[in-house]
Amino acid sequence: MTFRVAIIGAGPSGLAQLRAFEAARQAGYKDLPEIVCYEKQNDLGGMWNYTWRTGLDKNGEPVHGSMYRYLWSNGPKECLEFADYSFDEHFGRPIPSYPPRAVLKDYIMGRIEKDNLRSLIRFECAARWITWDEDTQQFSVTVTNHQTGEQETSEFDYVVVATGHFSTPNVPYFDGVEKFPGRVLHAHDFRDAREFEGQDVLLIGSSYSAEDIGSQCFKYGARSVTLSHRSKPLGFDWPEGMEERPLLERLDDDEAVFSDGTRKRIDALILCTGYLYAFPFLPEELQLKTGNCLYPDQLYKGIVFEDNPRLLYLGMQDQYFTFNMFDAQAWFARDVMLGRIALPDAAARRQHMDSWLARHGALDGANDDIDFQADYIRDLMDATDYPDFPVEKQGALFKQWLDDKRHDIMGFRNRSYCSTMTGTQAPCLPRPWLEIMDDSLQSFLKLEFTPAQEEPARKASNA
Amino acid sequence: MTFRVAIIGAGPSGLAQLRAFEAARQAGYKDLPEIVCYEKQNDLGGMWNYTWRTGLDKNGEPVHGSMYRYLWSNGPKECLEFADYSFDEHFGRPIPSYPPRAVLKDYIMGRIEKDNLRSLIRFECAARWITWDEDTQQFSVTVTNHQTGEQETSEFDYVVVATGHFSTPNVPYFDGVEKFPGRVLHAHDFRDAREFEGQDVLLIGSSYSAEDIGSQCFKYGARSVTLSHRSKPLGFDWPEGMEERPLLERLDDDEAVFSDGTRKRIDALILCTGYLYAFPFLPEELQLKTGNCLYPDQLYKGIVFEDNPRLLYLGMQDQYFTFNMFDAQAWFARDVMLGRIALPDAAARRQHMDSWLARHGALDGANDDIDFQADYIRDLMDATDYPDFPVEKQGALFKQWLDDKRHDIMGFRNRSYCSTMTGTQAPCLPRPWLEIMDDSLQSFLKLEFTPAQEEPARKASNA
Repeated sequence: MTFRVAIIGAGPSGLAQLRAFEAARQAGYKDLPEIVCYEKQNDLGGMWNYTWRTGLDKNGEPVHGSMYRYLWSNGPKECLEFADYSFDEHFGRPIPSYPPRAVLKDYIMGRIEKDNLRSLIRFECAARWITWDEDTQQFSVTVTNHQTGEQETSEFDYVVVATGHFSTPNVPYFDGVEKFPGRVLHAHDFRDAREFEGQDVLLIGSSYSAEDIGSQCFKYGARSVTLSHRSKPLGFDWPEGMEERPLLERLDDDEAVFSDGTRKRIDALILCTGYLYAFPFLPEELQLKTGNCLYPDQLYKGIVFEDNPRLLYLGMQDQYFTFNMFDAQAWFARDVMLGRIALPDAAARRQHMDSWLARHGALDGANDDIDFQADYIRDLMDATDYPDFPVEKQGALFKQWLDDKRHDIMGFRNRSYCSTMTGTQAPCLPRPWLEIMDDSLQSFLKLEFTPAQEEPARKASNA
Repeated sequence: MTFRVAIIGAGPSGLAQLRAFEAARQAGYKDLPEIVCYEKQNDLGGMWNYTWRTGLDKNGEPVHGSMYRYLWSNGPKECLEFADYSFDEHFGRPIPSYPPRAVLKDYIMGRIEKDNLRSLIRFECAARWITWDEDTQQFSVTVTNHQTGEQETSEFDYVVVATGHFSTPNVPYFDGVEKFPGRVLHAHDFRDAREFEGQDVLLIGSSYSAEDIGSQCFKYGARSVTLSHRSKPLGFDWPEGMEERPLLERLDDDEAVFSDGTRKRIDALILCTGYLYAFPFLPEELQLKTGNCLYPDQLYKGIVFEDNPRLLYLGMQDQYFTFNMFDAQAWFARDVMLGRIALPDAAARRQHMDSWLARHGALDGANDDIDFQADYIRDLMDATDYPDFPVEKQGALFKQWLDDKRHDIMGFRNRSYCSTMTGTQAPCLPRPWLEIMDDSLQSFLKLEFTPAQEEPARKASNA
C-alpha cells in the first residue's frame, strides 16, 4: 500500500524534497509515496518569490518573503549550485558569479518546471494545525485553502517541515522608539532602497541583513548609512557616507543616542535583528525549538525529529551552503521515508547528535564553520545517490568569498569564481555592481558579460 | 458543578464580558463560572493598547493594533459611554467630547482596574487552536503562552470570541505597486503622521480610516493629501492641500494614474481598504464567515453562533455604537451562559435572524443604520439587568455628529455634546483640535477646558 507525505512549504527546501522524489521516480524506484506540498503563497520559490507586501499577505497570513528589490546574491552562485542541474544547463551559457534575485529564482524554478512538479503543489494553502495520532501512526494535517476559503484536513504518514526560518522577525524594543517620528521597520519589511533616498538611515545589527541593506541604501542614494552593533562591528572598509557605531541605547525624538554617548539625527530605523523560529501550525510536542545555528539539537542528521522520526525538518540550519545542502538533506529524508536508510534506535540517534553537537560547540570562527557544514553535507551525501559534488572545494570558495568581501565590501560582487560542478569560469559584469541599478532578469541577461580576467586568488585570511 | 468559560481577547468586548460576570458576582448571582481570558498582547485594551510595532509582534504573532499616534476619538465620547461607569466617575470632572486615544483607553481600563479583574487575564497567550468535542460537550482550547514559550490546552464549556475584526488588513493589488519606489502601507500599519511631513501622500479608501489618516497627515504637515475612492467620494469640504480623486488605476513608477486619466506624483501610498474577518485559531465549522456589516448572519441576537450555541461572538458588527453595545452583548451572553436566558430552538433562532436580516437588507443610509443598531442594543438590553440607558438619544447624537462632520471636517472635534448617562454637558477644548499637537493623557488632562457655549444644534440632515 502506498504511503503519504505532506511537505509544508514550496521554497528551496520543499522543492528539493519534490525533486528528490522525482529523481527516484526517474531512477525507477518502486513504492513511491503520494505527495502533497502545501504552499502558503500563490507561487513557488518561498523566500525567492519576491512580494511587495509586508506584514500580512492578501489572505491575512504573515508574509513569508524577506527579500527586497535590487537584492543580488551575497555569495557566489558557484557555492549554491545544484549537483544535478547546473547554471550552464539552465541558462545555456555562463553567467557571472553574483546574479540578482530574479535570476537565481529563475534557476531554482527551472529544475522544478523541467520536471513538471507544479501539480503536486497546493498553492494558497496555509498549514493551520497538525496532529499526530499514536494509534493510527498518522499525522492529520489541516490547512486553510484560501482559494476556496475553506479548511481541508488529510492524513499523512510523514510530514516534512520546509517552512524556513527567516520569515518571523525578531524585533527588539529600544527606549523611545514609540515616539520616534520616522519609519521603523524590521529588515523583513524592507522592500525598496529608493524609499530612503536622501535620508539618514540607521541600521541595527551586524549580520548579512545589516551589511546588505546598508549597502543597498548607500547604492540607491541614502544621505548617510549608520550601522549599529551590539557586540562587534562588521569591520568592513565602508565608503564615505557609511559608518559603524556601537549599540543604539535609546531614541530621543528623532535622534539616536548610542552607548558611547554619541548622537545622530536619523530619518529611519531599520532593525536587522534576525529572525525567530516559528511553527504556529505545530503542537508543542512536534516543535523544533532552537536558535539560529549550524546544528540545531533535536534533529538526527539535522533532519529527523528526535521525538517523532516520522517528522522531518529541512533547512533549519544557519547557512553557508544553501540549495545543495537542502538537496543533500532532501535526498536523505527521502531515503529515510522510503526505508532505504534504516534509522538507528533512539539512543544511537541521540549519541550521534551529541557527537556533532560537541564538535559544533568547539567551532572557532568562520573557516571552522564552513568546514563543519561541508562535512555535514558530505556525511549526508555519502548515504544517498545525490550526485557527488566537491563540497570541500565549495568550502574553499566560501573562504575566498569572505576574503573578497573583507578586501572590498562594495566591489566583491565584481569578482568571478569557477564552478565546482562544471568547471566553468564565470564571466564578469560589464560594469561594477555599484553602477548597475536595474536588477531584472531581462536586463541582467542582456548585459554583455566579459571574460574573467586572471586574478591571483587572494589567500583566505579570515579568522 | 461549576462550568468554565474561555474569553479570547481582552479588548473592549472581552473586558465587557469580564465586567458582566463581575457585575453578576457583585449582585449576588450564584453558580458563576470559572473564567479564563486569553490575551495575545502583554496588556489589556485590545485595539486601544497602542503599539509602535507593525506586522508581527515581539512573539511573532500578527500585531493586533491598528491605532496610531495622535489618534483622537472620531465620534463623541457621549455615544460610547458605559451605562455602569460614567466618564464623570472615572475622571472626576467633565472632559471634552473628543478625547485622544490614551484618554479613552484610560477610561476603558478604569472600570476593569476598579474591579481588579486583571488576575483573570492570561497575557501573551495567543489562541492557537480550538476544537469542540461532541461527546464531552466541551471545547479544547490550545494557546501558545509566549511568557513560557509553551503551549497550554484546557477544556471549557463555553468560548467567547472577542478578537475584533479590525486587525487583519485587506490589501488589494494595484498595477505597478511592486515598482513604486516609495512606502506602501495599509492603514493597519500607519503609526506616525510625522513620517509623512513634507510628502505627497495618496490614500485609497473612503471610510473612517481614509478620512482620519488623511486628516492626521494634513494636520502634521504632509505637503498634499489625496484621497482616492472606488465608488463615491467622502465629499467633505476639505482644506487646501487635500483633495479627492477617483480610483487609482495604476502606478507608473512614482506617479499615480487615476481612472479619470489624471496623474499625480506621490511619495507614499496608504491603503485604507478595510479589514478581513480572521479566526485562524478556529476550525472551519466554528468560524463566523461574514463581511463587515451591521448584522452578520450565523449569529442569533448578533452573538450566539448558529451551529454551536456554546460558542459566542462579541463585537462582530460594524459599529456606530461601540463600548456600550459590547456591554449589552456581554450581559446577554453572560445570561445565556448562566441559563437565565433560555435560547429558543434552532428553527426559532433561524427565524429570528432572518427577520433582522430582512430589516438589515432594507436599510437606506446612515440614519437608518443608526436607528437599526440602537434598536438592536435596545432589544439586548431589555433582556438583561444591564443598566438601561437612552440608546435612542445616543442615536440622535450620532446623527448630529454626522452633520457636524459634514459641516466642518477639520473642526467637528471642537464641538461639545451632552452625556445621555449623566446629563453632563462636555466642556470645550481650549484651542481647536487642529492646533493641539500633543495627544498624551497627561497633556490632555492639563488643558484648561472651557465651558461649552450655547450652540444652536444644527438640524441633522444626512441621508
